[in-house]
Amino acid sequence: MSVSFSKIDPTLRRRCIDTMRMLAVDAIEAAKSGHPGACLGGSDLMMALILGPMRFDSGDPKWPNRDRFVMSKGHASMMIYAALHLCGYDLTLDEIRRFRQLGSRATGHPEYPLLPGIETSTGPLGQGFATGVGMALAGKMLAERFNTPDFSPIDYRVFAYCGDGDMMEGISYEAGSLAGHLGLGNMVYIYDSNEISIEGDMDVAFNEDVGLRFEAMGWHVLHCDGYDWEALTDAINQAVAEKDRPSLVIARTTIGRGAPTLEGSAKTHGAPLGTAEVQGLKKAEGWPLEPTFFIPDEVRACFGEVTAAKAAQHKEWDENFAKWRQNNPDLAKQWDAYFGWQQPDDLADRLYEVAKTQAGGATRAISSKVMQELYKAVPNLVGGSADLGPSNSTLLAEAGHVNHHDFAGANIHFGVRENAMAAITNGLAISGAFRPYCATFLVFSDYLKPGVRMAALMGLPSIFVFSHDSFHVGEDGPTHQPIEQLLMLRSIPGVTVFRPADALEVAAAWTYAARKDRGPLVIATTRQNVPVFERHSATTIGQVLQGATVVGEWFASGKTALDRVIIATGFEVSSCAEIAPKLAANGVSVRLVSMPSVELFLAQSQEFKDSILPPGVRRISVEAQTTIGWHRILGDGGVAIGLDHFGESAPASELNELFGFSPDKLTARLLDAMK
Amino acid sequence: MSVSFSKIDPTLRRRCIDTMRMLAVDAIEAAKSGHPGACLGGSDLMMALILGPMRFDSGDPKWPNRDRFVMSKGHASMMIYAALHLCGYDLTLDEIRRFRQLGSRATGHPEYPLLPGIETSTGPLGQGFATGVGMALAGKMLAERFNTPDFSPIDYRVFAYCGDGDMMEGISYEAGSLAGHLGLGNMVYIYDSNEISIEGDMDVAFNEDVGLRFEAMGWHVLHCDGYDWEALTDAINQAVAEKDRPSLVIARTTIGRGAPTLEGSAKTHGAPLGTAEVQGLKKAEGWPLEPTFFIPDEVRACFGEVTAAKAAQHKEWDENFAKWRQNNPDLAKQWDAYFGWQQPDDLADRLYEVAKTQAGGATRAISSKVMQELYKAVPNLVGGSADLGPSNSTLLAEAGHVNHHDFAGANIHFGVRENAMAAITNGLAISGAFRPYCATFLVFSDYLKPGVRMAALMGLPSIFVFSHDSFHVGEDGPTHQPIEQLLMLRSIPGVTVFRPADALEVAAAWTYAARKDRGPLVIATTRQNVPVFERHSATTIGQVLQGATVVGEWFASGKTALDRVIIATGFEVSSCAEIAPKLAANGVSVRLVSMPSVELFLAQSQEFKDSILPPGVRRISVEAQTTIGWHRILGDGGVAIGLDHFGESAPASELNELFGFSPDKLTARLLDAMK
Repeated sequence: MSVSFSKIDPTLRRRCIDTMRMLAVDAIEAAKSGHPGACLGGSDLMMALILGPMRFDSGDPKWPNRDRFVMSKGHASMMIYAALHLCGYDLTLDEIRRFRQLGSRATGHPEYPLLPGIETSTGPLGQGFATGVGMALAGKMLAERFNTPDFSPIDYRVFAYCGDGDMMEGISYEAGSLAGHLGLGNMVYIYDSNEISIEGDMDVAFNEDVGLRFEAMGWHVLHCDGYDWEALTDAINQAVAEKDRPSLVIARTTIGRGAPTLEGSAKTHGAPLGTAEVQGLKKAEGWPLEPTFFIPDEVRACFGEVTAAKAAQHKEWDENFAKWRQNNPDLAKQWDAYFGWQQPDDLADRLYEVAKTQAGGATRAISSKVMQELYKAVPNLVGGSADLGPSNSTLLAEAGHVNHHDFAGANIHFGVRENAMAAITNGLAISGAFRPYCATFLVFSDYLKPGVRMAALMGLPSIFVFSHDSFHVGEDGPTHQPIEQLLMLRSIPGVTVFRPADALEVAAAWTYAARKDRGPLVIATTRQNVPVFERHSATTIGQVLQGATVVGEWFASGKTALDRVIIATGFEVSSCAEIAPKLAANGVSVRLVSMPSVELFLAQSQEFKDSILPPGVRRISVEAQTTIGWHRILGDGGVAIGLDHFGESAPASELNELFGFSPDKLTARLLDAMK
Repeated sequence: MSVSFSKIDPTLRRRCIDTMRMLAVDAIEAAKSGHPGACLGGSDLMMALILGPMRFDSGDPKWPNRDRFVMSKGHASMMIYAALHLCGYDLTLDEIRRFRQLGSRATGHPEYPLLPGIETSTGPLGQGFATGVGMALAGKMLAERFNTPDFSPIDYRVFAYCGDGDMMEGISYEAGSLAGHLGLGNMVYIYDSNEISIEGDMDVAFNEDVGLRFEAMGWHVLHCDGYDWEALTDAINQAVAEKDRPSLVIARTTIGRGAPTLEGSAKTHGAPLGTAEVQGLKKAEGWPLEPTFFIPDEVRACFGEVTAAKAAQHKEWDENFAKWRQNNPDLAKQWDAYFGWQQPDDLADRLYEVAKTQAGGATRAISSKVMQELYKAVPNLVGGSADLGPSNSTLLAEAGHVNHHDFAGANIHFGVRENAMAAITNGLAISGAFRPYCATFLVFSDYLKPGVRMAALMGLPSIFVFSHDSFHVGEDGPTHQPIEQLLMLRSIPGVTVFRPADALEVAAAWTYAARKDRGPLVIATTRQNVPVFERHSATTIGQVLQGATVVGEWFASGKTALDRVIIATGFEVSSCAEIAPKLAANGVSVRLVSMPSVELFLAQSQEFKDSILPPGVRRISVEAQTTIGWHRILGDGGVAIGLDHFGESAPASELNELFGFSPDKLTARLLDAMK
């Protein structure tokens, strides 16, 4: 099953490439913004993939075994839009004419899932590189699970197109190091090496031997001239043929190639060339000045032929896949479970049953127990930690580990690579076949915030488990104690943060995690044990998933009306439940609300919100993190109790006292807040 | 000027090393927490630096030409505390006995500036590695500025102690790549390669050829057995002798060395060994079980001799430095200006004068003009961008660029390495001699949040310039449009965020930036031009630096009392000033407050705050970012107007309309908010 047009007539090929280049230039001129240099310099590389090994079907952009193409150099977006249009994807020339305009899916940087054929959003450098590693890992893990001697339903490759900026970013190093470690031979990364950065020649800041570095990281590295077709296609073919290691094809190119006065200049990077330069370019390349957005008939025909041949590969796969399903009914069933994100109807109950057995433990421990049960119920749960697995309590005990050339396991040792871990998790999520999670300490969510934001932008169901969610980290001190991290995560549009207070809420968090169309989810868990508190009325997981529930009400002697509603999250709910009777004894009638997810709560109806937080009753929030952000929930006369400074290195119990969260201190702070 | 005790009697040396190891083990047992494995395995390496080339004076830990020691592997903190105590630094054995307890400066991870001899806070892996690169760069830049043929007042080296985790972090790669590029031959990094991670043997996640990678990055790499004293000291000496490249000494070690049953196990990483294991260890090493915290007399004597000899180097430097000052009075004056952070008395006025010439431009452009003037006034202003200099407008036009073996310039090409950039900036700040800044787009502050937090923890005067501070980025789309970033930065304790609205406020921001003891500062600037608005009364920079000023008041016909106070920041102040008369025409009397810095405002007296935001008058905030966080300022009945979802790819003017910030839309939103 191999189709290649790389031996195509050179003149026609040149026309095809130039069509892509001129479409890009015209679109950028029309938009009065964009990045022409990359498209002029790199379209030969793009074309080599299209005419060469890349497998795709523009009629079915979601074919599970398509090769993935990642435009890591996201600013070269017009190059992929031109390619998608020419290959028959759902992108009209009209939309390309409105490149970078409101409503056009030909956006400034590629956006997933906005436009079919775009496999992941890119733009922030290195994100595509690292997300592609997740896609490749997903491919290897799916292949291990589903391929049989008679047929391999999954053997897709990940082709990524990278620039100098990608090479400099730490996230790419991290992801590349892990890819080399795992031996992801299904990766072919093209490095469009034009040696120009925004601030000038690359050697103002970057003169390392990139090829040697990737070899040190376990990669198969090839060098070629990006404009020597034979050398280029030969390198790509060698890269595809290499099955044991990820491959990097370093193709030497020239930014702004063909621009009469600006070729090779950083000035072609981020601004339109201007009319004179464009006209000079077109003349020099023998291209008509008018019409703009010109696509020669022979080019249309050529792409049509290529696209049809590529689609035929899909058809062949379809036939084999149908046979494979018949011959392997158990695997077919498992396939549907994976890709359909199937789960048992009684999942929530099952999770709560096991959660209860750990009541009184740390929520990280309860969470661990729930994860074991979830893994039994949905075997496409996969993930791991950035070398803090034993601390995060995120190991799937019944599953093995993914390792070098060994992809049967469900646990992933991400290594101390938080930033790449998030992007790789996103890549696993994009596969649509895995429910992926990753983990580290809450304070180190700082290191992977870029990836959480990308997950939010794409609406991906990535799960981020952050343990050690308060100063109760203790002796490790302020570098390890989160203060502003819950707020940071809550403030990303589309992210749901869940900080469970007890076994019920942990079960609810993972019940929610098992859903597909929820966007990224953060689960924050404690290092320390959480005392069991009693809820005054039976509470269901469904209620918890409305974001907030009433734990109970304590009335002062002789009173029947509430004086205050206390809103707490996580561990602090148990503290507040413990001292609520003291508050009542002090003459204050209080309701305690546990609000594990601010986002889920705010998404409810006003009627529901009023039922939890009765209008007119003043509110106090209690959370051992920054108070910033709470006042939007508190409303008029509200008081936020939290921790608005960095922590200290000392045993947690002493910090609890020092920071005002011990029972006595917290009682005093609450009574003070009610004055 | 060279002192080395590396040929010391091996038995005595062993006793010295074992003293450090046993102090660490005893402290960790007493604290019931800590990381014994690293200290048991790595103390030979630490000792080789102390007995070898490292220059220090425990009597004057701030000696400007001391060698810098960075414990990048911050969890090995007890190793450096033991060394500091034995070398006579201000750290008593009593404080070590209270390791990780409240009030002890022997904290869980080393904290700067808490304890003399600790050059930077560490713990989050890779931060020490990258901050050390900043220290080395500072050394090279100072040497270039101050060294003369007769004497080199600055030729310190940076010794960093790194672990496997440091090697895996992307930030270390970024910093290492830049160090190699620049040829920072004053760096000697020791890699304590024990090949054990928390999740087990290193080869579960990391099997690259680290040495080869660093060679590819332009480093001088040496390998040795960490316990072969000859080989180890020889490697360190070669590393010190190498002046053209940074050096990495890869010393093979064993975690938990000597622990009878746990040697080589990940179990020794992050928990006390326990009594039995400690006793077994001490017996095997011929160490008395009692007393704990035992320091043999001959060890005390040995460290005393070493310390005295090292201090003598300082004395010699002092004498030479005094002569140098006499012989080079201009340089001496410049030295005082650098290290004293001197600045002209009329700095604020000068900055405002030039700022005014750019009024009506983008605040990034105004900021650029102000920076040029600031550089004239304080030549120790240095910095650069993560390859976005032309966009951030942060180039110092009169200064050259730092480059490979060329350190005369003040501009630094950081490359596309945001994360390391922040840490390197922190290292420059720690030098005490530079006013360092770094820059990128506001949205990419996500990539360097870890470094901003470290700056905040250490109270460093690092300056972070983030341009393109709203959706006005336009066509580049949602990956490039900040939404939650201002809040993220404001929520870090100790960080001051400044979002100037006009030339006056830009001048104020940089006036504040010139101060030393202010902690980290963020300056957020616009891409787009900001219309000039008129302030109803003359406003000074001093007033702006109280965080908020009244721009003006507009009264509805026949009214004399305010109906609303509008609080805006940055570009949105000009928008609100434009539409304020319309609001008055609609019957609402409004005061417009510009609040460039929420943090500075909140630090003022209640009386001042009431003068800006009169109690009883309802407030509305207008900022084109997330509204989260504003309600703490708004108080009862307040309304926050902002942007609580991701952006879009389109021209900024269209987004302005779409997102409700055009004059008409904003007027309507404000009137609606007043209902």
